[in-house]
Amino acid sequence: VKTVGVIGGMGPRATVDFMQRVIAATGGAERDQDHLHMVVDHDPTIPDRSAAVAGLGDDPSARLATAARRLESAGAELLVMPCNTAHRFSGAVVASVGVPLVDWPRAVVERLVQRGVSHIGLVATNGTIASGVYDRAVQSLGTQLVLPAPAEQASVMSAIYELKGGGCGVGSRLRTVAASLLLRGAECVLVACTDLSAWAAAGARSLSGDPELEHDASQIVAEALVAHVREGARVPFAGI
Amino acid sequence: VKTVGVIGGMGPRATVDFMQRVIAATGGAERDQDHLHMVVDHDPTIPDRSAAVAGLGDDPSARLATAARRLESAGAELLVMPCNTAHRFSGAVVASVGVPLVDWPRAVVERLVQRGVSHIGLVATNGTIASGVYDRAVQSLGTQLVLPAPAEQASVMSAIYELKGGGCGVGSRLRTVAASLLLRGAECVLVACTDLSAWAAAGARSLSGDPELEHDASQIVAEALVAHVREGARVPFAGI
Repeated sequence: VKTVGVIGGMGPRATVDFMQRVIAATGGAERDQDHLHMVVDHDPTIPDRSAAVAGLGDDPSARLATAARRLESAGAELLVMPCNTAHRFSGAVVASVGVPLVDWPRAVVERLVQRGVSHIGLVATNGTIASGVYDRAVQSLGTQLVLPAPAEQASVMSAIYELKGGGCGVGSRLRTVAASLLLRGAECVLVACTDLSAWAAAGARSLSGDPELEHDASQIVAEALVAHVREGARVPFAGI
Repeated sequence: VKTVGVIGGMGPRATVDFMQRVIAATGGAERDQDHLHMVVDHDPTIPDRSAAVAGLGDDPSARLATAARRLESAGAELLVMPCNTAHRFSGAVVASVGVPLVDWPRAVVERLVQRGVSHIGLVATNGTIASGVYDRAVQSLGTQLVLPAPAEQASVMSAIYELKGGGCGVGSRLRTVAASLLLRGAECVLVACTDLSAWAAAGARSLSGDPELEHDASQIVAEALVAHVREGARVPFAGI
């Protein structure tokens, strides 16, 4: 059994939500002892990822590398980083440790391809979009992204910051964006911000109104991780 | 700011629930960066604590000490162990590291005393009750425990194991026990099993039907921890 290291705290609720998804995905676990061993560095003081991409804040690379080394020294044999935007800085993580990091965006896109999706409506932070975190995976797997219009993206980003501050009244704004993505050719809406995943899970909320049209990056990676650790299923790892 | 080490995984849902309570108790946190830094060893393979107390399973002491050392080496400056029963083995943790462990039962009873409670109805595992985890705190603070009758306690323990296996239909059994404790002189019901805390939080469930009559050990410790880290409030530490 592998010990999974979780580079967390980005944001706090998102890490807890991801852990919850891992626990729930461990089907057939009847006793505590059937669950995955996770070591978690829940460090909410890591600098804001979107601000860094926008040149408005500190680069979080060194702090992510510190977290990765801390988890490796605590026995982690495999790392996962439940923050989509932080994958812009995954090279710093990979370069700093000897254990693999799950390639989150690639794991997500691979799963969507398996589900027959070729046009993915992306609901994510400014940093995830601006830095092209999903672009490489999408291109190499023959799929395409459908992105929000600029005003819609501003509305998504304001909703995410409100959720980080403990707010919750952001549903109608996000549903408007989701509807627009579907109108403009997206075959599904991908929730690709772990803060949004946590918000959706906390209230059993939907952006699209139709579970068939909606996928969640945290849920996909949680399931892929559990299948990897328990059944040896393949999961993609990030390169430098 | 102190880094808090969480000795977790007992059970998995309970640790996640405790983290969530810490995050929620961090009032006024508007940004990720305002939250507490936690390092978490979420090891669900630690042997069953109640089974160990009953002589039916392995002693978890060595594994708890390993987790504590792992967290200390990962930078934890203060440890907390969100499992009431595990505090039967807290001596092993305290002896193995140079950083303090929050005295969970004492923190809980101190708070109840502040709230004017002198007869505490205890809803907990067999192991917590049999090993007297709460007795020392209760005696030294001039309060008393009201315990379930043996058949009631069996019903509590079966409910806890059902919850660990993913069940949820245990409410009426637990409410019957809570009502009995209140009838027999308890001034409040103390939920002193982190698995029960997680179940109650997940469904906004109540054992007593009256929030005024109910206290939750996880919630009390989460609040005490946040007050300690953010405001320097005193929190009791466990001795050897």
